[in-house]
Amino acid sequence: MHNYKLTIQYDGSRYKGWQRLGNGENTIQAKIEQVLSLMAGEEIEIIGSGRTDAGVHALGQFANFKMGKNMTEKEILTYTNQYLPHDISIINVEQVSNRYHARYHTSEKTYLYKIWNTSYPNPFLRKYSSFIQEPLNVDAMKEAAVYFIGEHDFTAFSNAKSKKKSKVREIYSLEMVIEKELIEIYITGNGFLYNMVRKIVGTLIEVGLGNIEAKDIPAIIEAKERNQTGRMAEASGLYLM
Amino acid sequence: MHNYKLTIQYDGSRYKGWQRLGNGENTIQAKIEQVLSLMAGEEIEIIGSGRTDAGVHALGQFANFKMGKNMTEKEILTYTNQYLPHDISIINVEQVSNRYHARYHTSEKTYLYKIWNTSYPNPFLRKYSSFIQEPLNVDAMKEAAVYFIGEHDFTAFSNAKSKKKSKVREIYSLEMVIEKELIEIYITGNGFLYNMVRKIVGTLIEVGLGNIEAKDIPAIIEAKERNQTGRMAEASGLYLM
Repeated sequence: MHNYKLTIQYDGSRYKGWQRLGNGENTIQAKIEQVLSLMAGEEIEIIGSGRTDAGVHALGQFANFKMGKNMTEKEILTYTNQYLPHDISIINVEQVSNRYHARYHTSEKTYLYKIWNTSYPNPFLRKYSSFIQEPLNVDAMKEAAVYFIGEHDFTAFSNAKSKKKSKVREIYSLEMVIEKELIEIYITGNGFLYNMVRKIVGTLIEVGLGNIEAKDIPAIIEAKERNQTGRMAEASGLYLM
Repeated sequence: MHNYKLTIQYDGSRYKGWQRLGNGENTIQAKIEQVLSLMAGEEIEIIGSGRTDAGVHALGQFANFKMGKNMTEKEILTYTNQYLPHDISIINVEQVSNRYHARYHTSEKTYLYKIWNTSYPNPFLRKYSSFIQEPLNVDAMKEAAVYFIGEHDFTAFSNAKSKKKSKVREIYSLEMVIEKELIEIYITGNGFLYNMVRKIVGTLIEVGLGNIEAKDIPAIIEAKERNQTGRMAEASGLYLM
């Protein structure tokens, strides 16, 4: 068997997220597996480094798959990009040892969230950002961001349906980059609960709007109650890096 | 009468270009006029600084319109962005003297052309660039670009259907900005013939591919024959600045 690591980029706008839900489902995983199975001449299953929700994008998601056929990295890159839909690209292929497993071997993840913050919507970012018309207090948001860094029980920022037992995760960094009307929020951590990034960003937005005070963030985290956080930010602004 | 100057941004992907062609046509001009007419309570005609073809985008196109009603700039900005489709935005409104005319008072225009040049397509730029898979020789393209600068008869780069008598135009600058896989070409001039920018870019692409030599550009311009230029570059990569 040959094991290949893929780096994948996609515009998630028209998909139901990464994870295959059944046959014929409109998911990123299913689309890629279809193309790889045709290429390999056998049924291929890919393992992703993480899962993205409906409408969420990826700039460089890792995945791996094994197949009996021996092909060069370049052959796989060319074949897949020729047959994949235009909103999914394989940007790199690397043959790896058989022990490589994209989920277990990805020890940290970075998400990027884009906010378009000015009086008019950006026609080019309407599917690739969250549009907030009211001016955001970026300094307050930066102050709030610091409180999320470190190891915390993120129950307050999890989804009620989450089956994960431990809600403890560590956020290594949470940075905000402001370029004129565009606010980019980079969050890196050892793992994220379902909807956690969007709930953290939603809370930062509430801070920016003046509805939540930055200094109240530690208490909101500690309370572990879901109703104290801000709204969940839209999927369209989120990218797995 | 009050005269207002608009700065407009749009994603041209799903439109038949700027210019209204009749009633109910799917053009940028018709969409904006519909909204302005409702706002003004009278039939409004807008004058654009230029026209874009089907699929071409704009980052800051000027236009103006006159109406009897007196509204503040902010009121117009808010109203139009609320009712326009999400792929058209008014990014600025300015009340101007009644003599201002967007077409006559725009003495130079800049177009941007984006080329995505690497082995895999970019899912986020598929409607916003031209994808060229073969490596382009950027140095040769830069060398070729210089020959376009200045006043020339651009018959070779015009459309056969063009009704404009004089094909003489002046290009003030033609710059290429390379950022990794993305090639941006900025062209500024006193005016452009129909399809001229796309034909110049198409010719630069042929130079980049090695099909046309940079040093042959002056002869191609002088020959004034349309069949000597490169292919016409795709509309999706073109932006009116």
